[in-house]
Amino acid sequence: MVRIAVAGASGYAGGELLRLLLAHPDVEIGTLTAGGNAGSRLGEHQPHLLPLADRVLAESTPEELAGHDVVFLALPHGRSATLAAQLGDDTLVIDCGADHRLSDADAWDRWYGGEHAGHWPYGLPELPGGRDALRGTSRIAVPGCYPTVTSLAMAPALVAGLVAPDVVITAVTGTSGAGKSLKPHLLGAEVMGSLSAYGVGGTHRHTPEIIQNLTNACGRRVSVSFTPVLAPLPRGILASCSAPLAEGVDPSSVHEAYAKAYAGEPFVHLLPEGTWPATSSTLGANTVAVGVTVDRDANRLVAVAAIDNLTKGTAGGAIQCMNLALGIPETAGLSTTGIAP
Amino acid sequence: MVRIAVAGASGYAGGELLRLLLAHPDVEIGTLTAGGNAGSRLGEHQPHLLPLADRVLAESTPEELAGHDVVFLALPHGRSATLAAQLGDDTLVIDCGADHRLSDADAWDRWYGGEHAGHWPYGLPELPGGRDALRGTSRIAVPGCYPTVTSLAMAPALVAGLVAPDVVITAVTGTSGAGKSLKPHLLGAEVMGSLSAYGVGGTHRHTPEIIQNLTNACGRRVSVSFTPVLAPLPRGILASCSAPLAEGVDPSSVHEAYAKAYAGEPFVHLLPEGTWPATSSTLGANTVAVGVTVDRDANRLVAVAAIDNLTKGTAGGAIQCMNLALGIPETAGLSTTGIAP
Amino acid sequence: MVRIAVAGASGYAGGELLRLLLAHPDVEIGTLTAGGNAGSRLGEHQPHLLPLADRVLAESTPEELAGHDVVFLALPHGRSATLAAQLGDDTLVIDCGADHRLSDADAWDRWYGGEHAGHWPYGLPELPGGRDALRGTSRIAVPGCYPTVTSLAMAPALVAGLVAPDVVITAVTGTSGAGKSLKPHLLGAEVMGSLSAYGVGGTHRHTPEIIQNLTNACGRRVSVSFTPVLAPLPRGILASCSAPLAEGVDPSSVHEAYAKAYAGEPFVHLLPEGTWPATSSTLGANTVAVGVTVDRDANRLVAVAAIDNLTKGTAGGAIQCMNLALGIPETAGLSTTGIAP
Amino acid sequence: MVRIAVAGASGYAGGELLRLLLAHPDVEIGTLTAGGNAGSRLGEHQPHLLPLADRVLAESTPEELAGHDVVFLALPHGRSATLAAQLGDDTLVIDCGADHRLSDADAWDRWYGGEHAGHWPYGLPELPGGRDALRGTSRIAVPGCYPTVTSLAMAPALVAGLVAPDVVITAVTGTSGAGKSLKPHLLGAEVMGSLSAYGVGGTHRHTPEIIQNLTNACGRRVSVSFTPVLAPLPRGILASCSAPLAEGVDPSSVHEAYAKAYAGEPFVHLLPEGTWPATSSTLGANTVAVGVTVDRDANRLVAVAAIDNLTKGTAGGAIQCMNLALGIPETAGLSTTGIAP
Repeated sequence: MVRIAVAGASGYAGGELLRLLLAHPDVEIGTLTAGGNAGSRLGEHQPHLLPLADRVLAESTPEELAGHDVVFLALPHGRSATLAAQLGDDTLVIDCGADHRLSDADAWDRWYGGEHAGHWPYGLPELPGGRDALRGTSRIAVPGCYPTVTSLAMAPALVAGLVAPDVVITAVTGTSGAGKSLKPHLLGAEVMGSLSAYGVGGTHRHTPEIIQNLTNACGRRVSVSFTPVLAPLPRGILASCSAPLAEGVDPSSVHEAYAKAYAGEPFVHLLPEGTWPATSSTLGANTVAVGVTVDRDANRLVAVAAIDNLTKGTAGGAIQCMNLALGIPETAGLSTTGIAP
Repeated sequence: MVRIAVAGASGYAGGELLRLLLAHPDVEIGTLTAGGNAGSRLGEHQPHLLPLADRVLAESTPEELAGHDVVFLALPHGRSATLAAQLGDDTLVIDCGADHRLSDADAWDRWYGGEHAGHWPYGLPELPGGRDALRGTSRIAVPGCYPTVTSLAMAPALVAGLVAPDVVITAVTGTSGAGKSLKPHLLGAEVMGSLSAYGVGGTHRHTPEIIQNLTNACGRRVSVSFTPVLAPLPRGILASCSAPLAEGVDPSSVHEAYAKAYAGEPFVHLLPEGTWPATSSTLGANTVAVGVTVDRDANRLVAVAAIDNLTKGTAGGAIQCMNLALGIPETAGLSTTGIAP
Repeated sequence: MVRIAVAGASGYAGGELLRLLLAHPDVEIGTLTAGGNAGSRLGEHQPHLLPLADRVLAESTPEELAGHDVVFLALPHGRSATLAAQLGDDTLVIDCGADHRLSDADAWDRWYGGEHAGHWPYGLPELPGGRDALRGTSRIAVPGCYPTVTSLAMAPALVAGLVAPDVVITAVTGTSGAGKSLKPHLLGAEVMGSLSAYGVGGTHRHTPEIIQNLTNACGRRVSVSFTPVLAPLPRGILASCSAPLAEGVDPSSVHEAYAKAYAGEPFVHLLPEGTWPATSSTLGANTVAVGVTVDRDANRLVAVAAIDNLTKGTAGGAIQCMNLALGIPETAGLSTTGIAP
Repeated sequence: MVRIAVAGASGYAGGELLRLLLAHPDVEIGTLTAGGNAGSRLGEHQPHLLPLADRVLAESTPEELAGHDVVFLALPHGRSATLAAQLGDDTLVIDCGADHRLSDADAWDRWYGGEHAGHWPYGLPELPGGRDALRGTSRIAVPGCYPTVTSLAMAPALVAGLVAPDVVITAVTGTSGAGKSLKPHLLGAEVMGSLSAYGVGGTHRHTPEIIQNLTNACGRRVSVSFTPVLAPLPRGILASCSAPLAEGVDPSSVHEAYAKAYAGEPFVHLLPEGTWPATSSTLGANTVAVGVTVDRDANRLVAVAAIDNLTKGTAGGAIQCMNLALGIPETAGLSTTGIAP
């Protein structure tokens, strides 16, 4: 049994990690820690995790986290780096925050500010070379939720040269993506019955991460116009992505290219032509549902993809990477069955 | 007092027309008709319209609709043309359906099928020349909800030559946009907690109407890639629109260009730079809220706009046009105050 | 024109007051004040109130509020009394908070704590004697949202002696009832997809107010078991209320008794027998929708009532009272038309 | 391995059965059948059940269902009896419909109409004697969703004589409880943003089943006043239940009595005093969360309970019963971990 700890267990990412780890056949749940909630029972913050209700949250210190095979960090951005530096290389540290995602120190400084903590192996196995980077590693940077779904929507088209490297994305998200933050615009009364855009014009911090993924995947500098939209549901992201069809590409070859790119992928579900994903099909599952077509009038390839932002978009993706790093079967503890309706 | 009739009074568009007309100072509500619901009380179908609860719905025939100054047609696509042909030119006929929106008979045939009923003055006063087309007319084609919000989001950029005529749109809608149709995917249990794409790849019927509006506005053939998304709210559309910045355009001139285009427009609310619309601010109001910026990395102009699909997107827009056609003050009976939270 | 001021203009009750006052034919909107938000533009907090977007919020002091005909106080509980004491009797002060609702100082101390500010005329015109208490008054205590809907659901039965004075109530509410409070359980991600009970077992502060209303109405001490439930919608309360049928009462007389009690009431809509209210029909309207029947097996009278908690439940009720106090027509500025769907 | 079939696999109950059975360690999923959807792929109706997407639905005939160890019937009321009669006693038949729940033929005739198909062992193990009735049986009537949650909320109080047998219940439900029925009031646009009562006054068909359960549990005729409320969420029931405290009962003994009644129950979670359940904690889990207190002013015991209507309220409860009937560990394939937020 792999002994795991979770730092940030009272938040949304921490809660989803624990939900999935409770059903994982090969792990034993060790220490759970928190920031301001240290000292309280987990049941106060995660009443849905009945089997762990009476666990008391420890402080998020290296001492409390020591002695585990795997430590998941589900902390606010900027808090992981210092903590991780104090955990030995014999511990697999999996950072669900942003600290170790970007390889470019300038990009880090522009988008997050402050000193760059460096770049860890990136936890998106379905990207080209993704699995190789993870096997046997002791450090993993878990992707952001938007970069997960949008990179997987567009990478096959860019890798196969089906499109020009000018990607336009509008992605609609449920509100858990913002975490358990006490901000007025996240109140239920504000959120329900409303759709709102934010971070428009390339100002959302996930933009450089999407560019990095797609650029790495296809070997050309990719431009990305990214608009996030907040919608009234707790979980789920639906990403609408497109790019100009490259010259000479036969539109009827597009679906086949995606089918080839994702053949054998356990968690990518390419929908039949003419059908489109809904986030409800992925609720609580580690699935990415992808549909793709060509708009012949507009001469653009259009890919639409859906995930559960807390599962494949955060905690499920993290566990998939843990499995790969430790040599456990990649799908252990993860499901392709959603909860609906 | 202007005496009005509403055909299709038991549906969502009909209900919203009546809600607004009840508060209009210059109208008197005459005959209300329906298809399958003829013979029943309006209160059974529109319990929120208490003052009209005991009105009995008549059949949607020319005889029942005769003798009114204005007849609103809120009927399924394809039903308006025949009925309208039997109403005299002394009656102002306002068609909320699609029958008379497209000027191109081939486009009609491709997107809707069957014989083209012809093209009526188009009811979007905020487009260039929009008001002139409506004054004194006896026939008005009310725009579709998506064309309303997306055309107003992008027209100023295209008219001023700020962008190349290659527009990419993802628009997210509440479910009343589909009407009161008994389809499994519109059931509450399916809709709540889910985001889903449909009509992807340029297959949604509003695509040719958006192209027509933008092409007419700027005098160049505009290409539009349009992806609609269904979200869990009753009302509201948020449209995320973008196009490549034209060469030589100064990004800092963009907001000013929109301010100039919409100066004096009573129902267009251009948000301050750096702020973005939410549909909740427009609930029940005739407002279009628009935000615009330039993504300098991606070199695209991005405009985001929000409306209430039943108000400015259908019934409010229709009444605004009625006011213009009849020479009543354009804002009579219409509000810029939304209902929130 | 009546010149009004609103203290607490950046909250939900304040916002709804302004939405309604903007459409009121006889008022002019004067000073708007706030606590922590003083100094900022109203548009930052109430983006749906476009016509007032550029108003700057003053401090909630007697000096700022002086010089108006009417001052609405939409403040947290306990803040109204001191402020009101500094406003002269020539000003109509309408308190939307709890400070002046309870007549019993012991009840105030038990439920709210601290010194009792005294009891003002109670703003529920539809209760027996309700209107008389309000005509010409310069002080009005606006009822709580739950007391409004539940008192009107049960008063006719108690007054007519149809039931024993043992009332059981479960009332389900949208989340705006909790105000714009930054509490974790009010976050959208927590609220959507969940129903939760709170204040169970007679611990909710509205309990003594409901008891007071029903006891005053029928002249007998009424016992009330009250359970509130939080549901995923922004606005609306649905109250399910019942009491044992009194001996000898003919079940078929019950609906008629309610019809008589509410004959001529402009804002009470008694539904036909066998039909039941939905909150959506009352959205934004000042309507109370009531249905009533007898469960003959259980031998109980059951009344179900719906309101918009921010309209009839707070701001609409307050304006109705203002109209009465000032001798303006009672329905001025208030609607019985809801917004749906 | 136990080989199972599901009749009615394209509906909500059928889908939830399959979701849970996919994760059950001891079963193999055999034939899936449907009514009008026979001949189509399961993936068209249940896109969240990826592992079964390509299964083709057979007709719901005895021939197709023969040859399985267990047959789950998830059919409209009135359809199970005939089909079940043609399945041998060597097959465990588990009826999720109402046909075999009521022991009283007169009650069947009054509430459902037509001939009574007889009474099968009732699938609520947590009721007194509940487990004994299920061990080794070949026929199980799965309770309705409301009877499950309300019976478990009140049975301990009645069994221990803590209350008079006059129970008042208001239960709020998500819309999947109505099944995948194409009715206007179940459309997303109608449901979202609204609360509505239905079946008021003792007219809901689950009333006699609740009475039967509670009467059987305590040996006295129990009266039940039951009001169901529809709320805008896909899944979950929150039941607010109360009854007059019996004379001489010490209020401080109530929680302890519930603790004793449910000691060792794997799926009943009694909350600590002063805390109350939320349906979100039970989403997708087989848990019943129960809180109980005494309202000393009103002299009533109040119990509030929450379930997922499709899991513990239908499919999870059915599988729990299957486990008991077959001698599999009762909790196999069922979870006490919910999905939140």
